[in-house]
Amino acid sequence: MHSDSSAQAPLNPGLVFEMMQAHQRTAALKAAIDLDVFRAVGEGPGDVPSIARHCAASERGIRVLCDFLVIHGVLAKEDGHYRHTPTSAAFLDPASPACLASVAHFLGNPANHEPYLHLADIVRAGRTVLPGDGSVEPENPIWVQFAETMAPMMAPVAGPLAALALEGSAGPMRVLDIAAGHGLFGIAVLTQNPQARVTAVDWAAVLQVALRNARKAGVDDRYEMLPGSAFEVEFGGPYDAVLLTNFLHHFDKLTCVALLKKIHAALRPGGRVATLEFVPNEDRVSPPMSAGFSMTMLAATRAGDAYPLSEITAMYQEAGFSGVTAHPIPMSPQTVVVGRA
Amino acid sequence: MHSDSSAQAPLNPGLVFEMMQAHQRTAALKAAIDLDVFRAVGEGPGDVPSIARHCAASERGIRVLCDFLVIHGVLAKEDGHYRHTPTSAAFLDPASPACLASVAHFLGNPANHEPYLHLADIVRAGRTVLPGDGSVEPENPIWVQFAETMAPMMAPVAGPLAALALEGSAGPMRVLDIAAGHGLFGIAVLTQNPQARVTAVDWAAVLQVALRNARKAGVDDRYEMLPGSAFEVEFGGPYDAVLLTNFLHHFDKLTCVALLKKIHAALRPGGRVATLEFVPNEDRVSPPMSAGFSMTMLAATRAGDAYPLSEITAMYQEAGFSGVTAHPIPMSPQTVVVGRA
Repeated sequence: MHSDSSAQAPLNPGLVFEMMQAHQRTAALKAAIDLDVFRAVGEGPGDVPSIARHCAASERGIRVLCDFLVIHGVLAKEDGHYRHTPTSAAFLDPASPACLASVAHFLGNPANHEPYLHLADIVRAGRTVLPGDGSVEPENPIWVQFAETMAPMMAPVAGPLAALALEGSAGPMRVLDIAAGHGLFGIAVLTQNPQARVTAVDWAAVLQVALRNARKAGVDDRYEMLPGSAFEVEFGGPYDAVLLTNFLHHFDKLTCVALLKKIHAALRPGGRVATLEFVPNEDRVSPPMSAGFSMTMLAATRAGDAYPLSEITAMYQEAGFSGVTAHPIPMSPQTVVVGRA
Repeated sequence: MHSDSSAQAPLNPGLVFEMMQAHQRTAALKAAIDLDVFRAVGEGPGDVPSIARHCAASERGIRVLCDFLVIHGVLAKEDGHYRHTPTSAAFLDPASPACLASVAHFLGNPANHEPYLHLADIVRAGRTVLPGDGSVEPENPIWVQFAETMAPMMAPVAGPLAALALEGSAGPMRVLDIAAGHGLFGIAVLTQNPQARVTAVDWAAVLQVALRNARKAGVDDRYEMLPGSAFEVEFGGPYDAVLLTNFLHHFDKLTCVALLKKIHAALRPGGRVATLEFVPNEDRVSPPMSAGFSMTMLAATRAGDAYPLSEITAMYQEAGFSGVTAHPIPMSPQTVVVGRA
């Protein structure tokens, strides 16, 4: 992110000031989304008075907010008029099918920000200040919001993940989708293979969101649901493949291995598990987005982490999987790791 | 800050995610300062267990926090050991005389963060949600904290500013220091010219901080104080020079012009006013730090701004000043603007 990440970088007090004020960026992006600024800019003409009218906001506020968005790369300014950058046009204008704006409702949820007010305490204790298991407490309502809002961030990943799980198989098969959330991963399996059946595991309220999405995709006749904790429900099976998406990072290694053993037992011999994860390099400080995800897990969980490939591989092997392969997903900070039962 | 600030930049959904999570950087830097991480890294050997011991913190927490600081350029990592970058050694290690860590107490003060929880409302209304005049309400206690903690950020600026105000004058002279805060600017004048006398204006509680600093510098025998509002106290005079540091940005232009007229009247003919300000280019979106300061003023004041040079010059001229010159300060995002009575 910054050119200053090596000891050879020049002295830069601005970096300290910028970091102390970085919270403004989050607030500005969320305010702009809430005020519908990105739609107003997309519709043009992009001058302050017309954006202010569209957003029912003051001209002073809109001018300062839009300038701030330009400074941070999510708008452009020319002759006093604001317009989209390619990034804001694709990912922030609600007129774009790839718009990620809904994600701000989850990532900007005050419940998700609250631990950062106590980060020194969290570092001291080594675990979230949230009660119990933090974000993975049973039936935590944030996962309904996650399922409802985070789909746009996951949509580009669902196709490649399903393809890796299917391995070209077009015949009848059974797929278990653990922590199904919005359901997009299982739905992509059902879309790619019209003879596949999916069994989705998540909290009951979350599965209602997944079921709605399966109906919209016209695949709900092959969609079954197993409400409850992945650690407690009977998986049934045997399955040909198990999807384990954005789940392992919430837990310590022992817990992950126990779950992977349970998954192994539910797979037919030769079946595969496909994990979607933030997988940093072994140095744990690159690339920035996947490495930085460990901070989110420190703040929100008791013992979660962003595990490098060596650690995921070791957990897979301890649970009985072999032939572990890693597949970075293009245009995403995430990696699919496949193992074979 | 980002290479994506023009419409020619490539598509980058990561930029959106990064901005939504930017608040983590502020929390991480503040936690690291509170936990004394930067001193621990400076003392070595830089492995997780020894830093954790120094900080009385968990190894999991220290490892994730330090990795996060590496990702964002304020530590380096080599063979699993953390060490300083030039920036963190100079500006974050308490062993460095240029350490800026105390600044985090002001910039990280929850009272200063609170408006950002309501930024959409602020943009709608065009003014802070803080009561009255926001950060510039009479006797606001944040300015005592400002005076006590922000001096390290201003120290590199004080010498150049004083030199611009003195213009080589070594004889007896009187200087008015408005919004004196920590007092460093007036103190630099007194240090550079042993025949100068300074009169400092600020809230009474703030002036006690300035007076302590004047005593430390051994110049308090030439230091007078005028407690109260710069808009209300009698300046007296005539003065040879007036320092007006980080003050105009809190107010609208009419208010600034009224104050500049009052200053003009307190100066001898040919005397000068030296304003220290965040002065963005006329496009108001560059350079990033001075342009981005308008967001801080939107959030915290009724009508403040980061004024480009054309607007400061127009205010100066309306108040009767001429010969306006701008002097960017090296290693600082700020500019001194001098005008002549």
